[in-house]
Amino acid sequence: MSRPQKTGTGFVSLVGAGPGDPELMTQKGLIRLREADLVLYDALVSPELLQLAPHAQRFSVGKRARRKGVQQETIHHLMIRAAQRGKRVVRLKCGDPFVLGRGGEEALALRAAGIPFEVVPGVTTATAAPALSGIPVTHRSMASGFIVFSGHAEEAFGPMLAAIAPGSMTVVVLMGLAKRAEIAQRMIERGWSAATPAAIVLGASTRESESWLGTLGGVGTAPVDDSDLPGTIVIGAVASLSSVLGSTGAVETEAIGGDRVRARKGGFDGSSR
Amino acid sequence: MSRPQKTGTGFVSLVGAGPGDPELMTQKGLIRLREADLVLYDALVSPELLQLAPHAQRFSVGKRARRKGVQQETIHHLMIRAAQRGKRVVRLKCGDPFVLGRGGEEALALRAAGIPFEVVPGVTTATAAPALSGIPVTHRSMASGFIVFSGHAEEAFGPMLAAIAPGSMTVVVLMGLAKRAEIAQRMIERGWSAATPAAIVLGASTRESESWLGTLGGVGTAPVDDSDLPGTIVIGAVASLSSVLGSTGAVETEAIGGDRVRARKGGFDGSSR
Repeated sequence: MSRPQKTGTGFVSLVGAGPGDPELMTQKGLIRLREADLVLYDALVSPELLQLAPHAQRFSVGKRARRKGVQQETIHHLMIRAAQRGKRVVRLKCGDPFVLGRGGEEALALRAAGIPFEVVPGVTTATAAPALSGIPVTHRSMASGFIVFSGHAEEAFGPMLAAIAPGSMTVVVLMGLAKRAEIAQRMIERGWSAATPAAIVLGASTRESESWLGTLGGVGTAPVDDSDLPGTIVIGAVASLSSVLGSTGAVETEAIGGDRVRARKGGFDGSSR
Repeated sequence: MSRPQKTGTGFVSLVGAGPGDPELMTQKGLIRLREADLVLYDALVSPELLQLAPHAQRFSVGKRARRKGVQQETIHHLMIRAAQRGKRVVRLKCGDPFVLGRGGEEALALRAAGIPFEVVPGVTTATAAPALSGIPVTHRSMASGFIVFSGHAEEAFGPMLAAIAPGSMTVVVLMGLAKRAEIAQRMIERGWSAATPAAIVLGASTRESESWLGTLGGVGTAPVDDSDLPGTIVIGAVASLSSVLGSTGAVETEAIGGDRVRARKGGFDGSSR
């Protein structure tokens, strides 16, 4: 299969790293990493993936919750300058490069600068985190569709919650751990039942993965605050399937405040990773 | 990294094949294929992927638009019986196994039969098809969220369209080509502007990939009827970015009925595949 040739002007690949587990990156992403001269990566990208780019300079440009990262304009500048010097650049982004990660802005900056680029899609955490906890985002008689949005700020989740009818679909919120109490309260005020099944998946697909299973009413007080892992909130009837389909790797079950709580370590298959 | 051991009872992996391009399958999916004894695959899975399972018996169990496929219960039976005989089974599903593909039902059937299984997430066509046509499903000031549902029947798309406020988010419809006129009309009746940018991506990530770019008002008459490729419909302001970001591989541009129409051959990077 052909790949972009190294030319005088260089080339940028916006690559999705997937949800965390290096094995959940695509073949194409790995090929690009192996041939990269420069890798600009998000903070949450697995160190194991970076080792697959042995010839590359590697720079973290990622932001994490509650921490300051590299300015978006700086990322654009680094990509463009390296490509202008003939480098093969991989911009390695968590999940999928075009889902909630400002990848569109990066692509527009590259286009404006006349830099050839491509998008290499990745497994988005929005579907992988639920799946790895035994939750299909769609399921017959439970949900025929799902919505995905960011919970990092009211201006991100407010309009989305206002735009959907209560109980009508599966809701997947990325980057919403800090605002989860506000999101849950807003949904209940909008008419969602507090008894709607809900799950919170931390560090999906990584060794440290844990999931909490309960209801929308319990999302705000779910004991996930001490985690530094990225979290995915899943709200909707399908979340109840986790108790059936996600139990393979369950290591503890306890009741807190009327919610079923389950912390799982390791992958969905119950293996050690 | 560990993997499920072959035991007396066998094991089933529900694996996402990604949107079409074999290089967009994950590492983990490939590992499972290589070690499989039996592969049960959807009709649209790439033949190149099947060649990566050299030791396996391979059966197509897929449904395609307007054609009858294997009954869902038969798929369950085949998986369960093979696993009970100690086989490593890969159920290879288009896109992601838990997005709109009855993967949840397959997982429930395996659980009910006591068969150990895992889910190996894949790149969903819902985000990859737009991305490979230069459309980020979320983009600042355009869309802070996106909804995904199936357009195969009114009972699938009707409730979803009724549940979302017009113009509020990016709408991604899979399996909706045949009903696209009805979907577009319903949206306009619901209050969506007929001028809302829209795109239809056929055979995303494959050699035969083509995309049409226009508006919601033109979706119903978009010239995609003669295609046997799977189609993804994208509706929302972000679709307009395709004219900027998706032009690398453009081979023809023409105006039909006031809509911009662009057919692209090959991948997003403009290479020959």
